[in-house]
Amino acid sequence: MNRAIVQAPMSGGPSTPALAAAVSDAGGLGFLAAGYRTVEQLVEDLAETRRLTAEPFGVNVFAHRSDPADVTEFARSAGLDPATARWSDDEYDAKLALLAEDPPAVVSFTFGLPDPLPSLPSQVWVTVTGVEEARAAAAAGADALVVQGFEAGGHRGAWVDREGRDDIGTLALLALVRAAVDVPLIATGGIADGAGIAAVLAAGASAAMLGTAFLLCPEAATVPAHREAIATERPTGLTRAFTGRLARGIDNAWMRAHRDAPIGYPELHYLTARLRAEARAAGDADRFNLWAGQAHALARAVPAAELVRLLADETRAALEDARGRSASALPAPTTAKSET
Amino acid sequence: MNRAIVQAPMSGGPSTPALAAAVSDAGGLGFLAAGYRTVEQLVEDLAETRRLTAEPFGVNVFAHRSDPADVTEFARSAGLDPATARWSDDEYDAKLALLAEDPPAVVSFTFGLPDPLPSLPSQVWVTVTGVEEARAAAAAGADALVVQGFEAGGHRGAWVDREGRDDIGTLALLALVRAAVDVPLIATGGIADGAGIAAVLAAGASAAMLGTAFLLCPEAATVPAHREAIATERPTGLTRAFTGRLARGIDNAWMRAHRDAPIGYPELHYLTARLRAEARAAGDADRFNLWAGQAHALARAVPAAELVRLLADETRAALEDARGRSASALPAPTTAKSET
Repeated sequence: MNRAIVQAPMSGGPSTPALAAAVSDAGGLGFLAAGYRTVEQLVEDLAETRRLTAEPFGVNVFAHRSDPADVTEFARSAGLDPATARWSDDEYDAKLALLAEDPPAVVSFTFGLPDPLPSLPSQVWVTVTGVEEARAAAAAGADALVVQGFEAGGHRGAWVDREGRDDIGTLALLALVRAAVDVPLIATGGIADGAGIAAVLAAGASAAMLGTAFLLCPEAATVPAHREAIATERPTGLTRAFTGRLARGIDNAWMRAHRDAPIGYPELHYLTARLRAEARAAGDADRFNLWAGQAHALARAVPAAELVRLLADETRAALEDARGRSASALPAPTTAKSET
Repeated sequence: MNRAIVQAPMSGGPSTPALAAAVSDAGGLGFLAAGYRTVEQLVEDLAETRRLTAEPFGVNVFAHRSDPADVTEFARSAGLDPATARWSDDEYDAKLALLAEDPPAVVSFTFGLPDPLPSLPSQVWVTVTGVEEARAAAAAGADALVVQGFEAGGHRGAWVDREGRDDIGTLALLALVRAAVDVPLIATGGIADGAGIAAVLAAGASAAMLGTAFLLCPEAATVPAHREAIATERPTGLTRAFTGRLARGIDNAWMRAHRDAPIGYPELHYLTARLRAEARAAGDADRFNLWAGQAHALARAVPAAELVRLLADETRAALEDARGRSASALPAPTTAKSET
């Protein structure tokens, strides 16, 4: 899949067939987010995307495991109905069967490494947030790894969500993973513009995956209150207060009120679903998840195809510029072999 | 100061005149760390560095403010003598007077923005960790900004250390700062090799500053137990347990035992000084600060001059390679003006 600009799948609303198709048509790689969609909705999304473009695109699937989670106490303290908390595998098996039958160019997994990693007609990508995950995914046969740095918006793709972990920034993670495995890497997290794409390509990535950068495109189904927050310089933070799984969003009242929200995914996701849906509809930006990466203030409200072309031009210019500047700012090339 | 490879000042031991001189002699920019040195020691360090090299080098100075800090309770719980906790401005005025008289090529500040920013014969750089700090430093007349991302080892250069802040990764921070100010930027945090240097140059930085990458050089005064930890894949974390100021180090028993250490710099630094000195001497890696950036496992134990040349070669290769790969992986250049 030789496309350097990849649109990140953004489950829970923003990703649409129109966005994926526009990105792919412009020479990027668009992604559908199968997460939280029913199988019937995914069938429709696939058909709609294929209707809009003949170009390759990807589909992202959640691969989380069952962990014991008790969110009753949190539900009570947050004033939510504990009965709405439930576990779900997000219809993993049915979605995989559908994608095997009607394969997109790429199927990517997040939240875990399926065991065994399915053999599909598609390229299979696995999201990793650390070196151990990268080694395991490469050993399992992943065609490429999505290397998600600390800066990234939305859920951390880590396979196990645990307290006190210290996620690694995109630049450092890319270097560590590149030294550890020998598969193509797609870098994601904090990439806002073509200079950022140029940066991860220079750091050895085969492609850059951008999510937040596409959130203001008209093709994205980002709700107005979310768009408004993206366009500010408000800080982001990591939180479990919306879904029970660590995710990065623009700081708001719900996050501040529930800094101690427990690990409990997807139970907590379902527990807060109604609250969030109502807040979205009401434009109450303090009570739903404003997922965004750390560079969200740089997102541009332009059509997705235009954004892809702009990013490509910026990437080329950034690499040329760096090459020119480095010529005079680096010590001269070593001509002899190293002397030690 | 047109040198793309900068050696980060590393106070508290590792930085030496020999390291700074070797880096500068090889075409990088070496740095002395004035922090924790007496004025007399700094005089000696400057003389020794000038004896070793005629090339430009920099000196880093602490510019922290006085904050009310009570570390008595921490001292008691940690079994340390509260009487050893004290405040100090690290002889700021005397050091500045010395540097004004005997100016290095660059004087950089960390932990704060001096008010007013001193007018020196040297270039004046200010360390920033966020967009607001960047705007303030540029407005105050800094010649360049050291943009320190979340990945960086050692102390966070933030001007105010506060609970619950969410630091920004190097790649995202560089993009945000570049959009906010119009001064040269030196990127630091998570840069382990030439590919990382190429990455930040592509992202718009004028130079890359590497600290951990130099910790295993024979010219660095890194103690053996610290060197051993650097060469492992052990995770890093942010802690205040050694100095009362947030810093990144390789996780060890002291950090785990004091996750709740208070903000109280430099009182806590002096409080733990003896403990750390004894642990260093005894090779007890669980009781002193193993400062390291997130990509520490990639540090190479080679002489500093060789490392600088190697980094330069890798940087050139990474930029060439990215340029080549991007030619086929990006959509073709837009020839017409954007249509919107």
